[in-house]
Amino acid sequence: MARIVMKFGGTSVADLERIRRVADLVASEAGDGNEVAVVVSAMSGETNRLVALVDALDSDKIAEQTNSLGGAIDDEYDAIVASGEQVTSGLLAIALRRRGVKARSWLGWQIPLRTDSAHSKARIESIDDDQLDPSMKAGNVAVVAGFQGMAKSGRISTLGRGGSDTSAVALAVALKADRCDIYTDVDGIYTTDPRIVPEARRLNRIAFEEMLELASLGAKVLQVRSVELAMNNNLPIRVLTSFVENGAANPGTLVCHEDENMEERVVSGVAYSRDEAQITILRLQDKPGMVAKVCKVMSDANIIVDMIVQSISRSDNAANLTFTVGKRDLDKAQAALEAAKTEIGFEGIKSDPNVTKVSIVGIGMRSHTGVAQTMFEALAERNINVEVIATSEIKISVLINAEYTELAVRALHSAFNLAVA
Amino acid sequence: MARIVMKFGGTSVADLERIRRVADLVASEAGDGNEVAVVVSAMSGETNRLVALVDALDSDKIAEQTNSLGGAIDDEYDAIVASGEQVTSGLLAIALRRRGVKARSWLGWQIPLRTDSAHSKARIESIDDDQLDPSMKAGNVAVVAGFQGMAKSGRISTLGRGGSDTSAVALAVALKADRCDIYTDVDGIYTTDPRIVPEARRLNRIAFEEMLELASLGAKVLQVRSVELAMNNNLPIRVLTSFVENGAANPGTLVCHEDENMEERVVSGVAYSRDEAQITILRLQDKPGMVAKVCKVMSDANIIVDMIVQSISRSDNAANLTFTVGKRDLDKAQAALEAAKTEIGFEGIKSDPNVTKVSIVGIGMRSHTGVAQTMFEALAERNINVEVIATSEIKISVLINAEYTELAVRALHSAFNLAVA
Repeated sequence: MARIVMKFGGTSVADLERIRRVADLVASEAGDGNEVAVVVSAMSGETNRLVALVDALDSDKIAEQTNSLGGAIDDEYDAIVASGEQVTSGLLAIALRRRGVKARSWLGWQIPLRTDSAHSKARIESIDDDQLDPSMKAGNVAVVAGFQGMAKSGRISTLGRGGSDTSAVALAVALKADRCDIYTDVDGIYTTDPRIVPEARRLNRIAFEEMLELASLGAKVLQVRSVELAMNNNLPIRVLTSFVENGAANPGTLVCHEDENMEERVVSGVAYSRDEAQITILRLQDKPGMVAKVCKVMSDANIIVDMIVQSISRSDNAANLTFTVGKRDLDKAQAALEAAKTEIGFEGIKSDPNVTKVSIVGIGMRSHTGVAQTMFEALAERNINVEVIATSEIKISVLINAEYTELAVRALHSAFNLAVA
Repeated sequence: MARIVMKFGGTSVADLERIRRVADLVASEAGDGNEVAVVVSAMSGETNRLVALVDALDSDKIAEQTNSLGGAIDDEYDAIVASGEQVTSGLLAIALRRRGVKARSWLGWQIPLRTDSAHSKARIESIDDDQLDPSMKAGNVAVVAGFQGMAKSGRISTLGRGGSDTSAVALAVALKADRCDIYTDVDGIYTTDPRIVPEARRLNRIAFEEMLELASLGAKVLQVRSVELAMNNNLPIRVLTSFVENGAANPGTLVCHEDENMEERVVSGVAYSRDEAQITILRLQDKPGMVAKVCKVMSDANIIVDMIVQSISRSDNAANLTFTVGKRDLDKAQAALEAAKTEIGFEGIKSDPNVTKVSIVGIGMRSHTGVAQTMFEALAERNINVEVIATSEIKISVLINAEYTELAVRALHSAFNLAVA
């Protein structure tokens, strides 16, 4: 007998037929004598529907009042969108009972799953198992509404988009679960996006550090914070598909601490992100502290700066500074820089939203040489120009013109032989 | 300055445009310096959508298991359908903030509004004002999700269909409000259904007792329990429409304790209900306790028996017993009676779902004579046959063939001169 946390995303509970399939999968684990907690997302499309209602009312500007007069609305946003998971958890509990499985739904505030007060992007502070643990020991499947918790104020909070992964991992840690199985619409972690590279291969195992980089660099299967949390608590996560017949093979990918086999692999995967935009500050004064000043302007505007490169012209006492920001932050970033133009001191700004960040990731890079050379040769052979480079111990990222995205991903997948196990 | 509870039903918050109109009405009351709590229903159609999801899963019967194996599902039903009011309360709070009005949403468990454990038809036990009262005194409009509370188990409960009226009245009592305004899609209480009698007239005032009878007898404007609660706490309810331009006259109907003017009125309204069905037990043994035995069989089957008439044949030692039950309970009632046939002792059962109960209501009946005579003459003149009669101090109800419903309602409305104030 084991204690298992199973998590099902929005596409896995998209309609009543899918919820019945999920109930079958859960009933099967419970029928094997396991103690089971299930974390569910909202039915796919439901969160978007609710967010659209909020956005419509939030954009109202009445007479001469400004939006700021009535204050922020993140607390109400949370109360509204959390209802999506509330519905799914109740429906799954009903489907389980109709399969003869004892089950009940748990909302964030009922557990309680406590978070900080950062409404709409709250962080989990603690999960109480005083009620959950005895309920599960008594043979009840706990069906937990994902993505939600309760702030100190006693109000509903949400963890931000994708937060159900984090709910599941945090719950598994709190319940001292043996496994955390994340069911999704793909059957595991792939060497790259199979829509771009048909030969992309499902990995049987991947190290936490690699998964963390892939998730940060654009792979959408797992939320970054959920991987961090699993890594810090040494909790293996299995990523597998809910779109499978009961009883059929469904090995998925195990995300766990690195082992010897993984280290022999030089590169584990190729990730890409189209969510980047490039900004170049032209002829920035070449005085100490100028880069720090730019970063402070961005940080004051709540904008995360990613890849940074400074290029110094020897002919005069000036430098260009290039960096990337999230595409949706581009306008805000430019406005913030223009506002601080005199203070920082620069000639102009050039920006390009038409860029992609392509990355290779692998813990084997630590012990293998020539990885960067292979990468840049593969790109150069296809005449793909690299704008910015960023590296860490286990990844190399390049910023390229977005038109070359698929070509670059295919070139790298093939240069590192990723189709072959 | 007054403390006001405003309640808006599903059609009043049916879409974003309606919610904006409601926000204008609430902002206007708050702008006049009043302390305001608002109770909202789910957007119309939303509760039906959620109930349909529940019903679909609840009707699953897996393999040889029976539905009873997995237990009742009313607790999960409540968690699911309560989400409808959760969404509306958040949306209205946002709309109010965008109008410069301080507001926050309150869910049943946050207040808390405590109920008994009868999930899906819970009764309110207490409403805590420890948080609500200071919040309102600090100038915040309290937007309260109607229809829901928290059971002793800490789980969400609901008050049953129409429960938002009861939420509003109970809240007004707990908050010692000066007024409880129930906004709906009609502009008050009418002498009868204007779809049947175009000359039907809006009443400026109506006594609690009359409203209670009208609500019990088929008028759908207010939920019976909300009127009881208002009467027992001497809280005036104003019924008025939310479909009115801000600032336009909207007198509505005041439901309050009787006064002299009301007593001068013989009849205040004509109600009808098509939800009845008639059952006649033929040749029931004429022994003491037989009617009690029939009532016990019905009560054991959870069926409410309404109008009862016993007719004794002098030729033999047997009687016919006629009574009405809710139309949706008819099959269940017949089955329960057939199962107890030997025990009770009767020859057969005749049933008729094709009946309507038509009633006249008025506290003036207590002091005026000849009311019954006027009623039966008006019906006899139209050749309308009366099957069963039931009376109380302030009402007379007759059961008639459903085909004559409109004719009877018009005849009575005119016989008592209700079109004239």
